[in-house]
Amino acid sequence: MENKTGGPYRHRMGEKKITLLTKDRKPLANTEVTVKQTKHRFLFGCGAFESVPLANGELEGEKKELAEEIFNKFFKIFNYCTLPFYWARFEPVPGKPDTQSLKKAAEWLVSKGCTLKGHPLCWHTLTAPWLLDYTNAEILQMQLNRIRRDVANFAGVIDIWDVINEVVIMPVFNKYDNGITRICRELGRIRLVREVFRAAKKANPDAVLLINDFETSESYEILIEGCLEAGIPIDAIGIQSHMHQGYWGVEKTLEILERFSRFKLPIHFTENTLVSGHLMPPEIVDLNDYVVDSWPTTPEGEERQAREIVLHYKTLFTHPAVESITYWNFVDGGWLGAPAGLLRKDGTTKPSYEELSRLINEEWWTHEKTYVTDENGSLIVSGFLGEYEIYAKDALIGGFQLSRDDSEEKIILNS
Amino acid sequence: MENKTGGPYRHRMGEKKITLLTKDRKPLANTEVTVKQTKHRFLFGCGAFESVPLANGELEGEKKELAEEIFNKFFKIFNYCTLPFYWARFEPVPGKPDTQSLKKAAEWLVSKGCTLKGHPLCWHTLTAPWLLDYTNAEILQMQLNRIRRDVANFAGVIDIWDVINEVVIMPVFNKYDNGITRICRELGRIRLVREVFRAAKKANPDAVLLINDFETSESYEILIEGCLEAGIPIDAIGIQSHMHQGYWGVEKTLEILERFSRFKLPIHFTENTLVSGHLMPPEIVDLNDYVVDSWPTTPEGEERQAREIVLHYKTLFTHPAVESITYWNFVDGGWLGAPAGLLRKDGTTKPSYEELSRLINEEWWTHEKTYVTDENGSLIVSGFLGEYEIYAKDALIGGFQLSRDDSEEKIILNS
Repeated sequence: MENKTGGPYRHRMGEKKITLLTKDRKPLANTEVTVKQTKHRFLFGCGAFESVPLANGELEGEKKELAEEIFNKFFKIFNYCTLPFYWARFEPVPGKPDTQSLKKAAEWLVSKGCTLKGHPLCWHTLTAPWLLDYTNAEILQMQLNRIRRDVANFAGVIDIWDVINEVVIMPVFNKYDNGITRICRELGRIRLVREVFRAAKKANPDAVLLINDFETSESYEILIEGCLEAGIPIDAIGIQSHMHQGYWGVEKTLEILERFSRFKLPIHFTENTLVSGHLMPPEIVDLNDYVVDSWPTTPEGEERQAREIVLHYKTLFTHPAVESITYWNFVDGGWLGAPAGLLRKDGTTKPSYEELSRLINEEWWTHEKTYVTDENGSLIVSGFLGEYEIYAKDALIGGFQLSRDDSEEKIILNS
Repeated sequence: MENKTGGPYRHRMGEKKITLLTKDRKPLANTEVTVKQTKHRFLFGCGAFESVPLANGELEGEKKELAEEIFNKFFKIFNYCTLPFYWARFEPVPGKPDTQSLKKAAEWLVSKGCTLKGHPLCWHTLTAPWLLDYTNAEILQMQLNRIRRDVANFAGVIDIWDVINEVVIMPVFNKYDNGITRICRELGRIRLVREVFRAAKKANPDAVLLINDFETSESYEILIEGCLEAGIPIDAIGIQSHMHQGYWGVEKTLEILERFSRFKLPIHFTENTLVSGHLMPPEIVDLNDYVVDSWPTTPEGEERQAREIVLHYKTLFTHPAVESITYWNFVDGGWLGAPAGLLRKDGTTKPSYEELSRLINEEWWTHEKTYVTDENGSLIVSGFLGEYEIYAKDALIGGFQLSRDDSEEKIILNS
């Protein structure tokens, strides 16, 4: 708690006067109580695509056991999950979306205390190939209908969405023809962003809607400015940082944070990757072009990854604009076969997992503390923002949230 | 005229039925008349900064003679001039703008048949250094007042303006502190563009207002899209092409034209440079960083420049979106001391001048033609868009304009 009034994490902390009253409204005076943090307000996230087969009973035997072991470790550090809504996979046959299994996975993750994000609603990559059979006007309508349907179907379970992904290159993407590049080229970037955000907002007015990109250049900055000037309700700026070719370093990260924080919007670091094997060669422009038979994790790589993950998370957690960091991905061998996991393929933890756990569960965690209430039943608590529980003689008697803006709260107890 | 209904220049040509009536409204039937083109509609331009000392009587002796010789050659090919309004030079002392001498030069150029453009009204480079003494709110007000004053003062003489220059790098320009970068950083690019365009539009609602940049990347494209979505009245897109490091080539030029023509706005190629000496090394990023004692024109370089200028002008003239091409600059030794002129320092013409003259005055010029009017006094003329005169027996009897949209015109003669 030494950082309460200063230090690098002061914007992550709060202080609050809690007054405990018995059920007949009398102060719980001069009583010893213990306060425990139970959840971070900050969103420490990770892709959780594997929850879909696990929650839907599609895994058996050793595979199931491994997946369960992996998710046990997952829930020990993460409170935030990204779920896959890639259109090509979510709705391989028009009109037959995989809503059921996604819903089951989502509800399971929520039951584990996680907040969820759907990713992505509009993207030229992995979009439905059958869009190519339609006119641009029809493609746009189907894209908007898809957004309305999925955002409404998951409202209350998934209330954060990557509405549109990688718009900077969307109209000039030329690896293969696809419906989304076609309509983005015709409408222009800003008009397409407006349409998809409008549809998502209407389907779930309370949702947090993100624009997301791997571009961190002035192009993305100018695009966001254009969208905001056009009145598009962007709630948060998503920045990808797939660092297969090497850690960005603190300086570059701070420079990007400075440029994107001028919009006074929350920043989500949506896709953070640091490998624990050899680095991808610098001459690769589209990361997808790097295809290798095997990309092993190495002891030296794991040490480097652990050092870098600490620096990276500290840099982001220190910046007031950042509201979430999502790691990409939890276990080795995901996207591009990269050894980017915090766990190895066999589910054992790497040093990066231990370091991240130390930050999230120790350095940035408010340790359990015992207070004695005053004659009015009050105590002043301070700590990292998040959810807390109050115990008296080992019995849970109440709970509260610590946020930046609150100063006082009365809690009426059940006894 | 073989290109009238097809060919690469069809969008540069028109056809029109002219009916000649005597002053008592009778057809000038069965009469031989000669039609001569007198001016291009297309704006073939060049920087004409040297007109200021010349028109203001500041040159004497050989210098004056050389300047006059140079401008004689200038007017033989160009119908469009860019005049300098760099704030640092135009108003070195606050409240004492050099309106008088600019006005004198402008009126002289207009008397020579030229259309004029003022360049630029807002730019971080060569902006007034005394802005640094003021707050951002004051700087913005002074910038807008400067625009209102100068645009209104020159209305009717200068009706085309580069309103804002190089906005893509404006807020991140870090070579030296300056007032315009300061306000662009605070307001953001689009808001500053909106403010300066709004001020210019109000001061001269009939003016053609340009945004201008050397950036041809997606950043500029996205910026323009953002400005247009924000309702900013951009009349034309200005693209600089200083090719000190080598000719872009047809393919790159066409790719840029394709990307920027999607806005359905006229494109002005505002600053075209091709050197006739050695090329600037490719590793130079900011062209201003290249400082040499001498940069001579060479015979081989002049041949190359002539070939490239033909290709470049043909590429641009062939594209329907392009409305003007401004060369930068007419005589060697201008910006960066580059041998980029169509004339050498001594005023002699290079092959590039001859080639450009051949295009403008021959290949793209409608040659004098004799017609016989029908019984209704009509003739059908066709040719490159622009201004024409009609002669009967060597006497000027009337004139008309040939534009894309007109089909018919009655001309009442004086006799």
